[in-house]
Amino acid sequence: MSEMGLIVQKYGGTSVKDAERVMNVARRITAAYQAGNNVVVAVSAQGDTTDELIEKANEINPRASKREMDMLLSTGEQISIALLAMAIEKLGYPVISLTGWQAGMHTNSNYGAARIKTIDTERIRMELDRRRIVIVAGFQGINKYDDITTLGRGGSDTSAVALAAALRADVCEIYTDVDGVYTTDPRICSKAYKLDEISYDEMLELASLGANVLHNRSVEMAKKYNVKLSVRSSLNNNEGTYVKEVSKVEKMLVRGVTRDNDCARIALCGVEDAPGKAFQVFEMIAKAGISVDLIIQSIGDGQTKDISFTVAEADLEPALKLLEENNDFIKAREIKSSKDVSKVSIVGAGMVNNSGVAAKMFEALYDAHINIKMIATSEIKISVLVAQKDAENAVNAIHDKFLSK
Amino acid sequence: MSEMGLIVQKYGGTSVKDAERVMNVARRITAAYQAGNNVVVAVSAQGDTTDELIEKANEINPRASKREMDMLLSTGEQISIALLAMAIEKLGYPVISLTGWQAGMHTNSNYGAARIKTIDTERIRMELDRRRIVIVAGFQGINKYDDITTLGRGGSDTSAVALAAALRADVCEIYTDVDGVYTTDPRICSKAYKLDEISYDEMLELASLGANVLHNRSVEMAKKYNVKLSVRSSLNNNEGTYVKEVSKVEKMLVRGVTRDNDCARIALCGVEDAPGKAFQVFEMIAKAGISVDLIIQSIGDGQTKDISFTVAEADLEPALKLLEENNDFIKAREIKSSKDVSKVSIVGAGMVNNSGVAAKMFEALYDAHINIKMIATSEIKISVLVAQKDAENAVNAIHDKFLSK
Repeated sequence: MSEMGLIVQKYGGTSVKDAERVMNVARRITAAYQAGNNVVVAVSAQGDTTDELIEKANEINPRASKREMDMLLSTGEQISIALLAMAIEKLGYPVISLTGWQAGMHTNSNYGAARIKTIDTERIRMELDRRRIVIVAGFQGINKYDDITTLGRGGSDTSAVALAAALRADVCEIYTDVDGVYTTDPRICSKAYKLDEISYDEMLELASLGANVLHNRSVEMAKKYNVKLSVRSSLNNNEGTYVKEVSKVEKMLVRGVTRDNDCARIALCGVEDAPGKAFQVFEMIAKAGISVDLIIQSIGDGQTKDISFTVAEADLEPALKLLEENNDFIKAREIKSSKDVSKVSIVGAGMVNNSGVAAKMFEALYDAHINIKMIATSEIKISVLVAQKDAENAVNAIHDKFLSK
Repeated sequence: MSEMGLIVQKYGGTSVKDAERVMNVARRITAAYQAGNNVVVAVSAQGDTTDELIEKANEINPRASKREMDMLLSTGEQISIALLAMAIEKLGYPVISLTGWQAGMHTNSNYGAARIKTIDTERIRMELDRRRIVIVAGFQGINKYDDITTLGRGGSDTSAVALAAALRADVCEIYTDVDGVYTTDPRICSKAYKLDEISYDEMLELASLGANVLHNRSVEMAKKYNVKLSVRSSLNNNEGTYVKEVSKVEKMLVRGVTRDNDCARIALCGVEDAPGKAFQVFEMIAKAGISVDLIIQSIGDGQTKDISFTVAEADLEPALKLLEENNDFIKAREIKSSKDVSKVSIVGAGMVNNSGVAAKMFEALYDAHINIKMIATSEIKISVLVAQKDAENAVNAIHDKFLSK
């Protein structure tokens, strides 16, 4: 745990999926309490509960309103908090569970993906003053009409960080089923190792690239309110990874390597080389609700040019349909696509001042005989698109180059 | 349905146990709405949901606090209201679901068996003014601490009647899986028939005697606030039974015959015949939370007397244990017990002015060669204890005597 003070902990659905796991979590919570801390806990719905509730709704009405969907889904977390409070009661500690609205989580009215506006902490403070452990339903809040809202994906992480910010907690501990944030996915690179620290910005890039330990919204909020995060496992006592404003000054330029197979490439070949053409194409795609990631445009010859970009796999078919329907306007000679691609990225706040990083990454790939299809760079990351079969080799080659201990 | 106006409907767990039943209920509700009525609906948790939640709790902590139990159990109705609202949305009608607290159901803090204190109808009225169908979670409310409470057994009936009273509804329709209130259980007496009307008092006696269609608390509340009840099936369109203040004046002295197998007899033989002895015995039993039903005390001979009484079957073992542990004080020569008994009762508001009713009932039993073990009477009912094997014959014999058409 950490020094005495106020700790906010968050446990995900896997951590409370059955009675045994719930008891395990209860023991962790009471240990932190026993050490003298005030403890506030945000919990997700157990295991597959949310999916089961969605299935129940779909059986009746696949186009149910989001307002009623939130009414339904919020029961998942309510079940979790009651069971977890019961487990803590069994261990003999004072505890109280609070739903989102009882905990004062006020959100806007964007049902299904609501944003937390304010937290009225009066009730939580009162319970803490009584030295009770407070268990709060994650993922949910209440809007100005007194209707229940849910926060959408990663909502429980966001609840926990928002609570930590509002209560000025010393730390927000995010418990998950991995030990912390790794330099890359240990399942594809045996040399991957856990990071002790990482900055908010680096975490944001890693999260959006598929590292899958913390949802971006919660990291953004943690950054905004300067909440110190600790990502750790609910299944062991290993030190996790701290996410905070300024990470240790060290030689490590690159903090992690990620791979994302969920991407597909679309190439518009021989598009008319007229001003604003690319803008018009991407505006059309954006209006259809499809996110575009990497983009490459060949230098036009005054007549035609090629535009390539990547989308999530699920968006490939709708994107292609849209482009083909509008090709009278786009005038591409040919529209090509492939799902057989992966995005491999390196992330690190130190990269911005080091021009040699990209070259070093490309060298690693060249040495491994891996062909680069597309490249995109930002201040703290460099992404390349490679054939899916090459992705694991690419991750290992890059990890060896930058992160070998 | 009934005349235009404001209708409160209540659907039990069986009526909404799966998607198909939920759609069926949605069609009933929208038909009443389509006919021009404002409709408010109280719903129970689906099928076995409540039992499943209790099991989940027991796995973790069989002695969980009632406060957390209510937090857990109230999710059952919240799931029902969301699903039912979704079904009504599918049929294209305006609808909103409200939890107990959203519907303004204020209760006392007796978790697990809370009493409704007031209903703040502002939100419901606002939704009705918008011509929305309002679906309210039965069985639950909120106390002065903003904590969720549940109303205990028959809670959803009570919610519906309380809503009908607070909203001054024209009628409160209780939908169940039987057609209405019968003269006796049709499964044990083929000549049983449905009553068109019954008074609150008669219904109270029938409910407590095991007729099992309406919970007593809801009938008491309906009587207090003069709410007209209609008990009917959710599976057909048959007219049900009306429960109201003054039922039709008719010749029928006896309104129904009930049988209750859930009783056990305890006999304290040869108890010291001292003043207050019986009182002390029953006080001891009451303090242990055990309800005593029929009581018979033999006329003492100055030395000893016999005291017999009945308890629910589940209470037999604890009651016997208690009595045996305290027999130093009770000084019974022998404590006997039997589960092999049934209570058969007749109920009817007309009985109070007809001294011949009891005699006629005993005659019916005598003619059927059924031995009466105990007798108890009130203004509107007469109960006898018989051997369990004789109970069905007793019901039929009494029904023939009083209720043959």
